[in-house]
Amino acid sequence: MIQIYDTTLRDGSQGEGISLSLQDKLNLTKRLDEAGFHYIEGGWPGSNPKDMAYFNEVKKLKLKNAKVAAFGSTRRAHKKTSQDDNVKALLEAKTKAVTIFGKSWDFQVKTVFKIALKENLAMIEDTVHFFRSKKIEVIYDAEHFFDGFKENPEYAMATLGAAVKGGANYLALCDTNGGSLPELIREGVRTARVRFQLPLGIHCHNDMDLAVANSVAAVDEGCVMVQGTMNGYGERCGNANLTSIIPALQLKMGKVCLSPKHLKKLTELSHYVAEVANMPMENGQPFAGFSAFAHKGGVHVNAVMKNAKTYEHIEPETVGNIRRFLISELSGRSNILEKAKAMNLPLDKDSPATKKILDEIQELENEGYHFEAAEASFELLIKKALGKHKKFFELSSFKVSDEKLETGELRTEATVKISVNGEEQLMAAEGDGPVHALDQALRKAIEKFYPIIRKLHLVDYKVRVINAQAGTAAKVRVFIQFQDEKEDWSTIGVSTNVIDASCHALIDGLEYKLLKS
Amino acid sequence: MIQIYDTTLRDGSQGEGISLSLQDKLNLTKRLDEAGFHYIEGGWPGSNPKDMAYFNEVKKLKLKNAKVAAFGSTRRAHKKTSQDDNVKALLEAKTKAVTIFGKSWDFQVKTVFKIALKENLAMIEDTVHFFRSKKIEVIYDAEHFFDGFKENPEYAMATLGAAVKGGANYLALCDTNGGSLPELIREGVRTARVRFQLPLGIHCHNDMDLAVANSVAAVDEGCVMVQGTMNGYGERCGNANLTSIIPALQLKMGKVCLSPKHLKKLTELSHYVAEVANMPMENGQPFAGFSAFAHKGGVHVNAVMKNAKTYEHIEPETVGNIRRFLISELSGRSNILEKAKAMNLPLDKDSPATKKILDEIQELENEGYHFEAAEASFELLIKKALGKHKKFFELSSFKVSDEKLETGELRTEATVKISVNGEEQLMAAEGDGPVHALDQALRKAIEKFYPIIRKLHLVDYKVRVINAQAGTAAKVRVFIQFQDEKEDWSTIGVSTNVIDASCHALIDGLEYKLLKS
Repeated sequence: MIQIYDTTLRDGSQGEGISLSLQDKLNLTKRLDEAGFHYIEGGWPGSNPKDMAYFNEVKKLKLKNAKVAAFGSTRRAHKKTSQDDNVKALLEAKTKAVTIFGKSWDFQVKTVFKIALKENLAMIEDTVHFFRSKKIEVIYDAEHFFDGFKENPEYAMATLGAAVKGGANYLALCDTNGGSLPELIREGVRTARVRFQLPLGIHCHNDMDLAVANSVAAVDEGCVMVQGTMNGYGERCGNANLTSIIPALQLKMGKVCLSPKHLKKLTELSHYVAEVANMPMENGQPFAGFSAFAHKGGVHVNAVMKNAKTYEHIEPETVGNIRRFLISELSGRSNILEKAKAMNLPLDKDSPATKKILDEIQELENEGYHFEAAEASFELLIKKALGKHKKFFELSSFKVSDEKLETGELRTEATVKISVNGEEQLMAAEGDGPVHALDQALRKAIEKFYPIIRKLHLVDYKVRVINAQAGTAAKVRVFIQFQDEKEDWSTIGVSTNVIDASCHALIDGLEYKLLKS
Repeated sequence: MIQIYDTTLRDGSQGEGISLSLQDKLNLTKRLDEAGFHYIEGGWPGSNPKDMAYFNEVKKLKLKNAKVAAFGSTRRAHKKTSQDDNVKALLEAKTKAVTIFGKSWDFQVKTVFKIALKENLAMIEDTVHFFRSKKIEVIYDAEHFFDGFKENPEYAMATLGAAVKGGANYLALCDTNGGSLPELIREGVRTARVRFQLPLGIHCHNDMDLAVANSVAAVDEGCVMVQGTMNGYGERCGNANLTSIIPALQLKMGKVCLSPKHLKKLTELSHYVAEVANMPMENGQPFAGFSAFAHKGGVHVNAVMKNAKTYEHIEPETVGNIRRFLISELSGRSNILEKAKAMNLPLDKDSPATKKILDEIQELENEGYHFEAAEASFELLIKKALGKHKKFFELSSFKVSDEKLETGELRTEATVKISVNGEEQLMAAEGDGPVHALDQALRKAIEKFYPIIRKLHLVDYKVRVINAQAGTAAKVRVFIQFQDEKEDWSTIGVSTNVIDASCHALIDGLEYKLLKS
């Protein structure tokens, strides 16, 4: 089985716009483990306190499939390994595996380290050996291996040799700058495989749009570990996208990475990671994107209706995605039943309540709702239909006004009227903008009855225009992500009026919190 | 020189969410031609009236580099070629080149066409021959060539043979479903190259995240034409991304596609196409993305400061992109001067006005402005600084209110007070949402003084949250795209208040129109 080594938490978080909280990292670890991944690189304990906190916390999780790895560099030049701060931090992380990166490109050793080539070899061997002597599994990441292999192959091979002498368990060859063509990758892997007996890994970046091709080529040449990130997140143009590599290897080359059951969860996992990373999911992303199996051209739609193989290279279900016809969009009913089941709200396929829910979802989706990234709103909807929902408060009316005075001053205020068990409460608040003012007023009003609402905060607010062509009269879709000390949840609201849409999403978020408490 | 064949206007517009107006297509044609592309596939004249209108209009453009090609299928089964409607429409398009697609996969012939394999061969030969007899250049697109080659290589080769007999100028081999691995692509191209003397082209789709790798491999095996789209737009997961393929071929394999001068315009072209296609530009897009040469990790930033080659596989300037350090973001000054020059507003590098503009842009960018996709706002800013701007109206104050009544009814209204040459005008309007109401009120007020404002309309309205982590108090960036009978222009507004941000963008849009008239 090909070992899937995920570095979304470490290399992925170097991507522009990505910032993962400690809780995000723990949530992602759980999901990646459940997905059947073999290694999860959790962070660089020597680089920041958040990463060290992660390693303390992650030990408490009971992982079923994955080993957590800590990432760090070789010891500094001319230092004793056991006294190197980075090495000490790595040890303190107390993981079963560590990934040590060292320099394989002589140009880097000379330009960045400014040390003798020989000392670099000693740094690699010593550091690897140190962790192996503590019975810790060591994956050696040969940074810039392919650049080094191109310019000074003997030295690049010597750095691998140093890791082998140190006792490394894996040699992972890195195309750190993402500038290599598949043929160079093949040649480098082949040369290393002939020279060393160790299992090889591959670690690619996407600066040439070739990271998936390069990873797949490396496996074809004998690599047994693939390092990458979900959705290809990472610095500059990102890392090799595991969401593409896994199905390509498994479905096209017969190189098994995950069980078929786990593979079917890939699309869901990809969307989940996008949500946590607070990145828009790309519609056209291979395998997992919303449009990956969406047919628009008339010729294509007709042919797919005759036989899907005509314009689909795999069955979308294999990776948990669905086929869509853009001319007649239908929400996948089985998908909905599946999702409800996962929330411990099993729906009987033939009951009237189920029919009602499905019809309602269908209607809401036609209006522009999209529940994939708003599971709290989805759960509330099902609970309401099943009579398992309690109404905590009623928003009777609201008014939001934005005023720009002749002095240039901006003034935004919101008034809300809510009722709780017949008791009315009128409240007003100012804010930085209309939605902020509404949020403040709503919470001030509710807090009186449910003080617990204080403990929640908004971590993200997104607005997307659905039918852009309608200009300012377009419908907007608002996503809000909430958080308390325990969990995150997301809600959705849709309306032609951004205030109204935001209000729907805010209320769902507050209700969800009250329902959970 | 490798022939770059762009099909953004045809295959690219099959992408979900992409819809190009006639004017969009003409604007894109001009830009692709200026960029030095060799072929521009403009549309399928037989499939819709908009495409036929394009071919009538495009003749009036004086193109310097590109040939425009019309796309269409082989004649229908058992029909006379000259009487086939699709063929007639293609001829009517009056282009120098046509691209004829036919079926190469026996499975498709049997399942979709449900005709004899032999008749399909006749359809290919007859159709190609028909256009060649009219002295029109014919590129033959062998649809599903690689699937056919895998399942029934002899038949796939026979379909190419039919096109050769018909007199085709190019044979373009298509991986229509995007499901092929590079090794299959290589084998298919090699086999075709040995069998036929004709120049070969390649046309890939990205369903496996391998379209760039497959295109590059095909050129390595001898293809001399690459078909693809800008930014990889296209159905499902998109077409092969020319923005990645061109620099990969040219800078890494020495296969020249464009002059170095044209290559330097690639990033700008990529952003322009994204803007016209109304698609968010992906930050991480190889070569052209905003983050493609952005360094975030501390280790990387330090090394790049010593020598950029340490973490950059090419010099960003080669493709017209810039290096960015995410810790200390600086807008590229030379970029701004460049842009102003392109607008016929040349700035003297050392004048005080220029310093003022650069400082102002710097400050605005720090606040979250981003002028790349809001050229009208950028132009106004420069004109104001140069004293070339006339104030047409002054917005003294506005008030927007959204009210949800106890009956559930939503009521949105906006009041604006403007003054024109000292004359005040108070106006109110209702709307579908706060921005819509504001837009209506503003235009009603201005229309009295400048009736020309009636002729403009809003074609897109986008809201993006900048600092998402601040929740509903986050800053938002609003882009609005306007259009009149002649052109499109885009403006931007940034504020913590979405109404205020929209107001800025609306005013810029109206002022730009008045300034142009």
